[in-house]
Amino acid sequence: MLKNDRYIKAALSQPVDKTPVWMMRQAGRYLPEYRELRAKAGDFMALCTNPELACEVTLQPLRRYELDAAILFSDILTIPDAMGLGLYFKTGEGPAFKKPINDINDINQLFVPDVFDKLKYVTDAVSTIRKNLNNETPLIGFSGSPWTLATYMVEGGTTKNFGKVKGMMFSEPAAMHQLLDVLAKSVTAYLNAQIEAGAQAVMLFDTWGGVLSTRDYQAFSLQYMQQIINGLIREKDGNKIPVTLYSKGGAGWLEKMAETGADCIGLDWTIDIDLARARIGDKVALQGNMDPCILYSTPELIEQEVADILAKYGNGSGHVFNLGHGIHPTIAPENVKAYVDAVHQYSKQYHR
Amino acid sequence: MLKNDRYIKAALSQPVDKTPVWMMRQAGRYLPEYRELRAKAGDFMALCTNPELACEVTLQPLRRYELDAAILFSDILTIPDAMGLGLYFKTGEGPAFKKPINDINDINQLFVPDVFDKLKYVTDAVSTIRKNLNNETPLIGFSGSPWTLATYMVEGGTTKNFGKVKGMMFSEPAAMHQLLDVLAKSVTAYLNAQIEAGAQAVMLFDTWGGVLSTRDYQAFSLQYMQQIINGLIREKDGNKIPVTLYSKGGAGWLEKMAETGADCIGLDWTIDIDLARARIGDKVALQGNMDPCILYSTPELIEQEVADILAKYGNGSGHVFNLGHGIHPTIAPENVKAYVDAVHQYSKQYHR
Repeated sequence: MLKNDRYIKAALSQPVDKTPVWMMRQAGRYLPEYRELRAKAGDFMALCTNPELACEVTLQPLRRYELDAAILFSDILTIPDAMGLGLYFKTGEGPAFKKPINDINDINQLFVPDVFDKLKYVTDAVSTIRKNLNNETPLIGFSGSPWTLATYMVEGGTTKNFGKVKGMMFSEPAAMHQLLDVLAKSVTAYLNAQIEAGAQAVMLFDTWGGVLSTRDYQAFSLQYMQQIINGLIREKDGNKIPVTLYSKGGAGWLEKMAETGADCIGLDWTIDIDLARARIGDKVALQGNMDPCILYSTPELIEQEVADILAKYGNGSGHVFNLGHGIHPTIAPENVKAYVDAVHQYSKQYHR
Repeated sequence: MLKNDRYIKAALSQPVDKTPVWMMRQAGRYLPEYRELRAKAGDFMALCTNPELACEVTLQPLRRYELDAAILFSDILTIPDAMGLGLYFKTGEGPAFKKPINDINDINQLFVPDVFDKLKYVTDAVSTIRKNLNNETPLIGFSGSPWTLATYMVEGGTTKNFGKVKGMMFSEPAAMHQLLDVLAKSVTAYLNAQIEAGAQAVMLFDTWGGVLSTRDYQAFSLQYMQQIINGLIREKDGNKIPVTLYSKGGAGWLEKMAETGADCIGLDWTIDIDLARARIGDKVALQGNMDPCILYSTPELIEQEVADILAKYGNGSGHVFNLGHGIHPTIAPENVKAYVDAVHQYSKQYHR
């Protein structure tokens, strides 16, 4: 039995005593203990692929802050790496692939990786973290969305204008659908393996869905996330496994996202949470949505912002407090404490 | 008298025979004749600062395509450069400043540049282009928005997460407002000087307004664009000067944008133009909104997409056809012809 099940309950829109809180990228570079471990380990993937180190990094922020969930420490590009694209990290430039996807011939070579073999380091990390969490707080598993993975695979790394991947989408839509289908099948197997290994909730990160038009978002991103949600294990050992769907820049499509059957929809900060609740709050829980840059200011301003967002959401459950995107590496750790504590302190009044 | 005043009329929501069309960054790297001239000139700023070369580059796309407007060839960062920040271009990395803005002390040093001195190369380009256009098509002047200029000035160049500029905005809002105010005054003077020199329409590019929350967009971007619009020359020699306001990622704020008194609101491709028209089409004209990446596909698909967007907008004037953002440098010039011609061919039926 989970001692702190506030996150699970809120993501399922069930009553809670306080609004739960966590942060995207809560295990990461803003923490000196993370930077120290990473320097010792050598590089980022050395942390990801070693279950003991991934566990240690996952737990670091929970020792400092009263977070209501842990999230698996891993990279969103583990699946394309397992498909043989050769993930590596250029210093200061982010992730890149040695063998990017250029055409239908490359796509024809791809197959769903054996997640219990090629991605065993991830499921091993999940079970190690679960053991070490000792049922104190739940563990969230995650994956990038098919469209988001495809952007990196076709561009060969990060991109400013998405010309290659969108060029392929418009010029060779059948090839793009084939790529997204194999990715959707892979993500489904990957998330289910994380659930079998002990993840008590899962989240789909559609970081780049927002670069598409409404029509193309539905056809090339949302459709494949729907396919994944349809195939996910939703209950294990009598416990529901909440699913959170997050499309950065997706404010225009909240109703469509809510119709997928996800339990919780992640919001970035460009939409007010009261408007989002009015639109879809009767169907799903909402996660978000403080601008991560607020954390550059002072504890007093952070508390004020947290209180404002809680007041906008208003009474009742169905709110998982989070940033609208990942915490930046240059944030002062003491400001994170102000954020976490303020959510618990100011939210009690909305759960009477 | 303008021979082709379709763009001016549509931007003012007045009747036209066909929907006018132009493209953001229509003068630029996708054209071989541009690349040739730039190679001869040495670098990008050598083109911008030489009125004859800026004129030549501005006119290049009009020789190839039946565009309904020319847009001044210049950079959006001319104002901070005139303020003394030292604009330069790193190969492959975009614009950068030798002396970025770090704090209130730097902001205290800034003043509204004498646009008739420091930016004379721009107004000279405007009058040279006007002379060479020979009243065939109108000339659009432009500027970056204060918030967009501030992002480059504080970050020192391009940025992925806007941590510095948003950090300053949240930590030192008074300093940020001071910076935005001097920029708003500078942009007003700059656009009015372009109008005096012959620009027959102007456009404000708020490329980075979309990285803000609703509250912060209003306080730190829209407010200063409103200040500019209030100070612009709106009529010259009996001709109205249409003003277009474009915030990339601004789909959530269209009503607020339309209330500024701008004649035309620019849309990116993430919102359907029929929905945008239903929301604000009775107040303003709309510019947009084809995804620039459609131009990577085939002439047939481009024609289909143009026809779809025209059908979505529907009957009547008030639509200036454009891409939702600038054309990419790797687009094939023949695909642009398909785009321009399709707008004229398929739009006649909506203007009977």
